[in-house]
Amino acid sequence: MVYANSSKPEEETGRSIDDYHVEEHIGHLLRRAHQRASAIFQSYMGHEQITPTQFAALVKLRDEGELSQNHLGRLTAMDPATIQGVTR
Amino acid sequence: MVYANSSKPEEETGRSIDDYHVEEHIGHLLRRAHQRASAIFQSYMGHEQITPTQFAALVKLRDEGELSQNHLGRLTAMDPATIQGVTR
Repeated sequence: MVYANSSKPEEETGRSIDDYHVEEHIGHLLRRAHQRASAIFQSYMGHEQITPTQFAALVKLRDEGELSQNHLGRLTAMDPATIQGVTR
Repeated sequence: MVYANSSKPEEETGRSIDDYHVEEHIGHLLRRAHQRASAIFQSYMGHEQITPTQFAALVKLRDEGELSQNHLGRLTAMDPATIQGVTR
């Protein structure tokens, strides 16, 4: 994991903290890719104000029927705080 | 974009909405990958309670010096609402 190496002291990695550029790091790139996917999702949804996570929860409920909030969260990879916001 | 095809009526795509499985869709997979990257970032940060977006903002401020909140947001790919939360 690149973040890890970059956050270690210089003597451990041989790399200076000055060489740390956020644009090169996988977490940043994944965040941007996910942002883009969400924007495209939204553009197809048009004026339906539904988020990708709300959509995922609805589809999962259609497939599985009645589910507890925690179970629904696990099935859609959302932690308890996130699924609580989604189902509200 | 897979979301788009799947959200079109059946007669347009030849695919039933019953074939929609959230686990197969790029947005969901990118969200999970980003979640995992964030968890790994956090595990290396230990008890420092800093998020990946806060870290990105700090590194960018170190590189660029003083920046407006909006400019910092653009440089770190965060919309105004997000960068406002990060800098608070």
